[in-house]
Amino acid sequence: MDADEVLTTTRSVRRRLDLSRPVDLGLVRDCLRVAVQAPTGGNRQHWRFIVVTDPALRQGVGAVYRAAFEARYPADAQGPHRELASARHLAEQLHRVPVLVIPCLELPDGQLPAGNQAGLWGSLLPAAWSYMLAARARGLGTAWTTVHLDREAEVARLLNLPDRVRQGALIPTAHTTGTFRAAARLPLHAVVHLDGWNTP
Amino acid sequence: MDADEVLTTTRSVRRRLDLSRPVDLGLVRDCLRVAVQAPTGGNRQHWRFIVVTDPALRQGVGAVYRAAFEARYPADAQGPHRELASARHLAEQLHRVPVLVIPCLELPDGQLPAGNQAGLWGSLLPAAWSYMLAARARGLGTAWTTVHLDREAEVARLLNLPDRVRQGALIPTAHTTGTFRAAARLPLHAVVHLDGWNTP
Repeated sequence: MDADEVLTTTRSVRRRLDLSRPVDLGLVRDCLRVAVQAPTGGNRQHWRFIVVTDPALRQGVGAVYRAAFEARYPADAQGPHRELASARHLAEQLHRVPVLVIPCLELPDGQLPAGNQAGLWGSLLPAAWSYMLAARARGLGTAWTTVHLDREAEVARLLNLPDRVRQGALIPTAHTTGTFRAAARLPLHAVVHLDGWNTP
Repeated sequence: MDADEVLTTTRSVRRRLDLSRPVDLGLVRDCLRVAVQAPTGGNRQHWRFIVVTDPALRQGVGAVYRAAFEARYPADAQGPHRELASARHLAEQLHRVPVLVIPCLELPDGQLPAGNQAGLWGSLLPAAWSYMLAARARGLGTAWTTVHLDREAEVARLLNLPDRVRQGALIPTAHTTGTFRAAARLPLHAVVHLDGWNTP
């Protein structure tokens, strides 16, 4: 697949993950090898990728994820129906997804800076997205999820993460069923501003 | 270019930006059209992209960026020499780069959450990285920079950004001189952990 096709068809796959087909860890490693070519501030490479395949650990992480999801979106929650139903489906099935990848940053002391943390997370989230793009190019489906961060410490305990390691996302990974197209998005003029906010 | 080539050769270009060659804004729009196919939490699409081309505005943003850089890395600062010298070069030339793209999030009230902000920035930074990858596929060079966030409010004033709009990065964009290869990175086993932190 060419770059534009991968960049425009890497959807968050929640309903069409093939939960019965194992994922070769060599494929996951190939995706991570691509991922670490993303930018990292001052070439620090303080990203860490926790790959979870053990069934008991996936049960544990899945239970924490589900609890976080239900606390944030109770069964009677209002919201864009389609997205929420699909996110709920993933929350209920997460423990069955063969590979969960949790991209983390190893900080000197685990303290997140006060104020705007975009500079910090800019050294991890591009690599996480590269992982998903590389997975798409290899026929794997993924989804960008962060709801577990509401219970980050519980996930850290399950995975023996030291306090200095902070989690950035959770990326379920599996083979897919079906094909994927570009998403409907707002027209560009609704989100792009030329030479300042008020200039059309 | 195929996906893997783009994902592994999109370097932060600081010294090899062609400062004398204009950039067609149609190309930048194409890259942004690709960018907004990245994931966005709950399909909110609250990303905003400020494209700065006006020479006076670039002078202004460049001056703020340079001041932030010098405050963070005084001329006698220690650090990985090659990266720092290259970053200093970019800081000194930023105003001459034909296009500066500032990816932002429009928040309900501009307040960043306390604690871990990875969930929030996960709705912007993948799109910012997609922009850079799409640019690479079109022969443009970019760099992921965040040092201006130390003076985010000054940049916001120059660009008339409302308080509810928060900046995530600053991506200088220009044609390039030269070719680009994958970077040297730590071996994968140094950054990947299987089934928890202590398992090799």
